[in-house]
Amino acid sequence: MRVHETRLRVRYAETDQMGVVYYANYLVYMEMGRVEYCRSAGLRYRDMEEGDGIFLAVAEARCRYLAPARYDDELIIRTWVDEARLRMISFRYEILHAETGKLLARGGTKHVFCDRTMKPCKLPAKYHAMFGIGGRPD
Amino acid sequence: MRVHETRLRVRYAETDQMGVVYYANYLVYMEMGRVEYCRSAGLRYRDMEEGDGIFLAVAEARCRYLAPARYDDELIIRTWVDEARLRMISFRYEILHAETGKLLARGGTKHVFCDRTMKPCKLPAKYHAMFGIGGRPD
Amino acid sequence: MRVHETRLRVRYAETDQMGVVYYANYLVYMEMGRVEYCRSAGLRYRDMEEGDGIFLAVAEARCRYLAPARYDDELIIRTWVDEARLRMISFRYEILHAETGKLLARGGTKHVFCDRTMKPCKLPAKYHAMFGIGGRPD
Amino acid sequence: MRVHETRLRVRYAETDQMGVVYYANYLVYMEMGRVEYCRSAGLRYRDMEEGDGIFLAVAEARCRYLAPARYDDELIIRTWVDEARLRMISFRYEILHAETGKLLARGGTKHVFCDRTMKPCKLPAKYHAMFGIGGRPD
Repeated sequence: MRVHETRLRVRYAETDQMGVVYYANYLVYMEMGRVEYCRSAGLRYRDMEEGDGIFLAVAEARCRYLAPARYDDELIIRTWVDEARLRMISFRYEILHAETGKLLARGGTKHVFCDRTMKPCKLPAKYHAMFGIGGRPD
Repeated sequence: MRVHETRLRVRYAETDQMGVVYYANYLVYMEMGRVEYCRSAGLRYRDMEEGDGIFLAVAEARCRYLAPARYDDELIIRTWVDEARLRMISFRYEILHAETGKLLARGGTKHVFCDRTMKPCKLPAKYHAMFGIGGRPD
Repeated sequence: MRVHETRLRVRYAETDQMGVVYYANYLVYMEMGRVEYCRSAGLRYRDMEEGDGIFLAVAEARCRYLAPARYDDELIIRTWVDEARLRMISFRYEILHAETGKLLARGGTKHVFCDRTMKPCKLPAKYHAMFGIGGRPD
Repeated sequence: MRVHETRLRVRYAETDQMGVVYYANYLVYMEMGRVEYCRSAGLRYRDMEEGDGIFLAVAEARCRYLAPARYDDELIIRTWVDEARLRMISFRYEILHAETGKLLARGGTKHVFCDRTMKPCKLPAKYHAMFGIGGRPD
């Protein structure tokens, strides 16, 4: 299982008046994690959308918040593929405080491959190896 | 079980280049649902924070995306309390397309009551009835 | 000069750790003001994009912040057209606290009409009256 | 005049259905530019807020949009101080496409120094040199 780590710094815009990162922004962080996961696997998500008309429509998202992230904190987003099949893929994430290593949140997302008309479709064969799909009938 | 319905219109800012509402924004919609749920129960969430120093820290959030919401769509957020105890409360949500009645998303959030220092605490007695808490030892 | 007023309530997501609305969100409020201005003039901005492939690309935006808006405040967005021509339109905005009537912010945006390829174009004649364009050569 | 450059990559969350970065997000980019400008000058903005209770309340913001930024583009934010006085500071920004060097946007913000109660105040002497303030009576 390959785990990718990407880093980011919490923006002022991402905090709320409780003085911590607003809870929806963790899903934005997860998006950054999976984009960088793909890039590190040799896949530019933008090219998949523009070139092949393949979109990753989100089917599910969940997050457990263990400790708050604060303004200007540097965070590490750990991302890995939980399950990949011809028609769907699911990612898992851990969000850690970079300086202390403390685990702040755990999450997951599940995605369905869609074509330009947003209809579910099978992932083209050229992307299978990248996501660890064996290529057997789904 | 009391279910509250609130309405909102999708903003341009909330869409992404896929032409649909960006997935993290559904958590913002849920926040609006639970704020209006509380208001309809006679509780202004702002007063609870300012007056009593009680905060609802998010412990978990999840969402299942069934069909996309699009720019300028009017949405209905249905909100209800799933479980309320002295130290936590969980909400459930359904997001529907107002015009067609189609169910677009289902979600849930779980919250821990915290004081001004963000330490978990018990919900003051004056709020128990509002959330349907019996008041027995937790 | 027609002035349109629309109302909204500040969301938790829109605050920052200073306890006030984050400054970029005023531009989102302005977007809501101009969408509702158009709707009140009989124009659904969404139809202009989908039906005629006309987009309002933002060329300039500015805002003066006079007093902070806070969580759960109800705001009034006053919107009017400052200048409308065949190739551009500019809007002006005032953001007020609904309860007190206090002026919180003043702003303006300037837009260029674009086609589906994001190239500047002239506004089709059918929209001229709506924006108060006389129809003389630009 | 010291100019600081910081880099960022456009997130999917920051695009809108026009397929470009939503206009309000440029103000978020400017915030990142000025935070990193301060950091490079030896000032952690977070410490100024937490330690000395000095806040930079935004009084004005403006942006001219010259060409669109798109998803996954790497951007350069160039930031410098336009004017610094005892009670206010103004920043200027240029946002460029990192790969092509094309200028995408130009902007500016003006800020008033405030204390913890959000009342305007003078910047403490220890920060004067950092912002190039001579220290003469304002």
